[in-house]
Amino acid sequence: MSTEFSAWRKLVQADMEAVLDRHLPMVSEQPAKLHEAMRYTTLDGGKRVRPLLVFAAGELFDAPRDALERAAAAVEMIHAYSLVHDDMPCMDDDDLRRGKPTVHKRYDEATALLVGDALQSQAFETLSGGALDAARKIEMLALLASASGSRGMCGGQAIDLDSVGIALALPELEHMHQWKTGALLRASVLLGAMAGKALQAAEQAALDAYAKAVGLAFQVVDDILDATADSATLGKTAGKDAANNKPTYVSILGLEASLALAEKLRQDAHQALLSFGDAALRLRELADLVVQRKA
Amino acid sequence: MSTEFSAWRKLVQADMEAVLDRHLPMVSEQPAKLHEAMRYTTLDGGKRVRPLLVFAAGELFDAPRDALERAAAAVEMIHAYSLVHDDMPCMDDDDLRRGKPTVHKRYDEATALLVGDALQSQAFETLSGGALDAARKIEMLALLASASGSRGMCGGQAIDLDSVGIALALPELEHMHQWKTGALLRASVLLGAMAGKALQAAEQAALDAYAKAVGLAFQVVDDILDATADSATLGKTAGKDAANNKPTYVSILGLEASLALAEKLRQDAHQALLSFGDAALRLRELADLVVQRKA
Repeated sequence: MSTEFSAWRKLVQADMEAVLDRHLPMVSEQPAKLHEAMRYTTLDGGKRVRPLLVFAAGELFDAPRDALERAAAAVEMIHAYSLVHDDMPCMDDDDLRRGKPTVHKRYDEATALLVGDALQSQAFETLSGGALDAARKIEMLALLASASGSRGMCGGQAIDLDSVGIALALPELEHMHQWKTGALLRASVLLGAMAGKALQAAEQAALDAYAKAVGLAFQVVDDILDATADSATLGKTAGKDAANNKPTYVSILGLEASLALAEKLRQDAHQALLSFGDAALRLRELADLVVQRKA
Repeated sequence: MSTEFSAWRKLVQADMEAVLDRHLPMVSEQPAKLHEAMRYTTLDGGKRVRPLLVFAAGELFDAPRDALERAAAAVEMIHAYSLVHDDMPCMDDDDLRRGKPTVHKRYDEATALLVGDALQSQAFETLSGGALDAARKIEMLALLASASGSRGMCGGQAIDLDSVGIALALPELEHMHQWKTGALLRASVLLGAMAGKALQAAEQAALDAYAKAVGLAFQVVDDILDATADSATLGKTAGKDAANNKPTYVSILGLEASLALAEKLRQDAHQALLSFGDAALRLRELADLVVQRKA
């Protein structure tokens, strides 16, 4: 990765703190504890992969800054809420997230439940604001809602829950991840592009292919890191999948083949962007980042 | 209440089953268990107070049917999700809802968590569809998101949680309920009206005053019923508030004064509708229903 890309990434990540800070309710507003907990889990942490995808896709079509910031904040709030609920005792029962106690450990379970619920509402509220054309905003809201719901992220979680201890075949595992993490990653790419212009079918198909490859690569690398890195590096509990007997790319394919698959998906992602030429540089570099990350 | 009103109410309630059935994912779609549980908790039950408010307010301004159905389905999905999460062990820990086992009892806690999350997404997806002008839909989505989030329903839940065992004064209790149940009831009235036309300030103020009175009346009557009715009549566990040491209108004011307050709020609701004349008949009758209901 170029130093120029690294600088851009750090800028976006820093900007996202300010953007999320602006779009989250203040602690000075009632109910203070709920707002504090919403901020605790959303601010100051995370790789901001989804916002990076939003901004990188936005560069393709010169999307206005405020619209990108709102889209990025909305997808990050949805992502943050899903982590809070996912960490709860009735789901993954995890104590550590981004190197800090999870919300139900730092506060309590009831607060964690409400934090997730309120963050989801806030995501749609944030995306409904701003100066974009109303018809475009409706399309973006419908996309985010669909990517978040039972035919997207929540549906993937449900399939994941039902597959614990079951020997999933590779196509089923891929299908589950396309919903669980892929849907929101795809939405990030499309929202960034849609903030710039109404997409033509060919543009959407190219971005879909890119997002699909990056989404799967993201998950393959997650599984590789879960099997090979330590908790301190990851900022969350390592080795959880094996401990929970959850099917992963590494458990099905082995480590070598998983590494090769991640590299192939990186190339697929580049391939999908050919028609966009130089304007897609950031998206290409993001695919590289997703595959080459160490945490 | 007139027999004509009773017939209208039954029609709306029956129609809502069909509308929700249409807007919820089918069980034949994956993930089947999640979709089944979403339907289990949303269909075949409930007084449909919020949809009734949507339809009654829609009659004021001749709102198109599909827009009312979508708005009513969306608020009912938000309401249903809040009940599912509210019933979970970390919140009210309730086993019975509408005379049936709660979702976490019938399925499991993880499914209950996902059902609520997915219903919230589905509410926004449903409201983003249909033929209304995009700018109007954006206003409606922003209103629903705000009424659902940390400055609305979720915020009220958070204040409620923090007030268990604390001797709230009447203004604080009223404030909590205005958020916890009032925000979504208000949204129901406004969404129904907005589906017909863009509201002028005076119209919105009149509907706000009506919704505020009905929302508080609803809660006062809930507290009265919780203290006086049995579980079989309510379809949920009676006497929970006293058992949980939760402040209620009855515990603060006593039963007599609570009954008088409910009647005063019913009159306030009628008063607020004066400028709408005969077109507000349904809304007036709904205020009567809310106060005179037995469950």
